[in-house]
Amino acid sequence: MAFTGRELRSTLNEDGTLRLSLEQVTHGDPAPDAVVVQVEAAPINPSDLGLLLGPAQIDTLREEGTADAPVLVFDVPQGRLASMKARLGQSLPVGNEGAGTVVAAGSEAQGLLGKRVGMAGGAMFADYRTLKAREVVPLPEGASAADGAALFVNPMTALGFVETARREGHKAIVHTAAASNLGQMLQKLCRADGIPLVNIVRSEEQAAILRGIGATHVLNSKDEDFRARLVDAVAETGATIAFDAIGGGALGSDILQAMEAAAVRAMTDYSRYGSDQFKQLYIYGALDLAPTTLNRLAFGFQWSVSGWLLMPFLQRAGGEVVGAMRRRVLGELTTTFASRYTRAIGLAEALNPEVLRAYERKATGEKFLIEPGKG
Amino acid sequence: MAFTGRELRSTLNEDGTLRLSLEQVTHGDPAPDAVVVQVEAAPINPSDLGLLLGPAQIDTLREEGTADAPVLVFDVPQGRLASMKARLGQSLPVGNEGAGTVVAAGSEAQGLLGKRVGMAGGAMFADYRTLKAREVVPLPEGASAADGAALFVNPMTALGFVETARREGHKAIVHTAAASNLGQMLQKLCRADGIPLVNIVRSEEQAAILRGIGATHVLNSKDEDFRARLVDAVAETGATIAFDAIGGGALGSDILQAMEAAAVRAMTDYSRYGSDQFKQLYIYGALDLAPTTLNRLAFGFQWSVSGWLLMPFLQRAGGEVVGAMRRRVLGELTTTFASRYTRAIGLAEALNPEVLRAYERKATGEKFLIEPGKG
Repeated sequence: MAFTGRELRSTLNEDGTLRLSLEQVTHGDPAPDAVVVQVEAAPINPSDLGLLLGPAQIDTLREEGTADAPVLVFDVPQGRLASMKARLGQSLPVGNEGAGTVVAAGSEAQGLLGKRVGMAGGAMFADYRTLKAREVVPLPEGASAADGAALFVNPMTALGFVETARREGHKAIVHTAAASNLGQMLQKLCRADGIPLVNIVRSEEQAAILRGIGATHVLNSKDEDFRARLVDAVAETGATIAFDAIGGGALGSDILQAMEAAAVRAMTDYSRYGSDQFKQLYIYGALDLAPTTLNRLAFGFQWSVSGWLLMPFLQRAGGEVVGAMRRRVLGELTTTFASRYTRAIGLAEALNPEVLRAYERKATGEKFLIEPGKG
Repeated sequence: MAFTGRELRSTLNEDGTLRLSLEQVTHGDPAPDAVVVQVEAAPINPSDLGLLLGPAQIDTLREEGTADAPVLVFDVPQGRLASMKARLGQSLPVGNEGAGTVVAAGSEAQGLLGKRVGMAGGAMFADYRTLKAREVVPLPEGASAADGAALFVNPMTALGFVETARREGHKAIVHTAAASNLGQMLQKLCRADGIPLVNIVRSEEQAAILRGIGATHVLNSKDEDFRARLVDAVAETGATIAFDAIGGGALGSDILQAMEAAAVRAMTDYSRYGSDQFKQLYIYGALDLAPTTLNRLAFGFQWSVSGWLLMPFLQRAGGEVVGAMRRRVLGELTTTFASRYTRAIGLAEALNPEVLRAYERKATGEKFLIEPGKG
């Protein structure tokens, strides 16, 4: 039996246009160790937008195609094509994670038939997805597709931050853009595990969200005394590691500087190399595309600024650690790791210009869920 | 028996002046495990200037004191005092390393009496220095004080770079400000050990120095096609680690970008997270005091930019590795690790305004040696 369905594709063309469309894809009989899953829910994560929209200029959006087969086209500045050479002309499927029901299973995977599963691995903005059986996780009894659609990216990232901090010997964490879905998860996780967390946000509305779930250290970077309060919060918690979703500008540098200032407060002897307190900044997002500025003379020589990505982290952590992380996510699916969606849309709706502009805005507190069954 | 002699001191005062002077210090009988060394030679390393002159404005230099007891005074901008709070009012001795003859030894260190030794640990710009016996290294037969004066900072740093690269799994190295004394040492070391080294300099004169000692990859960052040639050199050598003495500006970022471009050349599939090639930039100096700018979108998420300092590296490396490094330095003291001095000056001469301006300039190829015996 074969299943034919739609798959959302993003294509960057050499002529400087980016094209979104729904392609028909047929899934044949799965291999012995594989399954076909009917996708019931897939979240739109910030990390999906990079592949979906890439370097497109949103205000150049135009509609082509039909209501049944919508197509959106955008212009891309020529200057940004060079770094995208490797994807030119390729029709790329989108969607990091999702949940659905197994509708076909290979001979070795029959136990999964009819089960509702969570999954990750790309191409989830689709009606069907074929995967290896070991790539899906059966959801706990009673869990909805929405409950299980986002058990990978944000929960594993939040756990990955805590695990990274532990492995590298830090006892408290600083997090930016902290009112995000991921940020709220991290706050709940750190509270449960007794790890002090300093949350940095950019508005009072965001600060209120975090205080509402029990956050004690919440700083608004727009406040005039932000830097002084950051030093105090870092000194009080002992935070020496930070995870930064913003990337551009000097906020990361300000955090390292606050950590150094807190360490120097505790020093008795002068050292022109600064404190011997090692400080780590991980950049895991790019909410600000500007270059990163490091005022490194303000934080000595004991520091590191690094990229942080989930997949390489999981590879380094190894199967045992990853297994324990997965079990914890399943166990706390509707508590610590619950995602809250503000809007559920169909697959074709994802290519509605107004809807796209809404989820592209990444507004505080808004989170979209694609439910292909809705149309 | 007591030895009384001069010690060069740097004092940063709250009134915003920096004062250099020679103080008389008396060294009494050494403890059982200690020795008194008459200092015969001490190099002026770039790393000494940070403590000696700190944030002083060189063009505000004025002479106070007498020919026998020279004193130099400089102004320091108020804005730069805040980060120097910990040294305000302290009379700090200067000079990271040197060589001399043991003139007094404790009961457990009699074997060192009369020996010529190399040493590190500060306060070397002086007539005498008291140290633990284990802090000095007897020089090979026939080695002069000048031969053994700089066996610590530059040789251990060059070896530290190679050891760091090896430990972290890199097979080739990029180095900036590569015509420095340290850079030439690193070139000789990498050549001897068969480790490809990409040297980046800022003038043709500097490039010629490196080619003269057998360097094959020498790039002038002032050349118009510098970036393209850097990608080629990185691709050819497979360099994925860089040591940067400059720190400020975007050169470090350019190096990471070149490493990424070389890695992407070899990729077949597009990934919006960039290549999975890990790239490491270590900043170990501050020839440019400006902030560091990272155009991180051009090099993906698999990278790290960190401070690199010799002492913490040696602590992490452990006694066995450090012992092997020391033995190698002594064995190759007059070959791989030979320092070339362009001018020897007395201790009082170091406080002569014209001489100070000359060594403060850090001109290419110039290297000063203090010989306290000269006066």
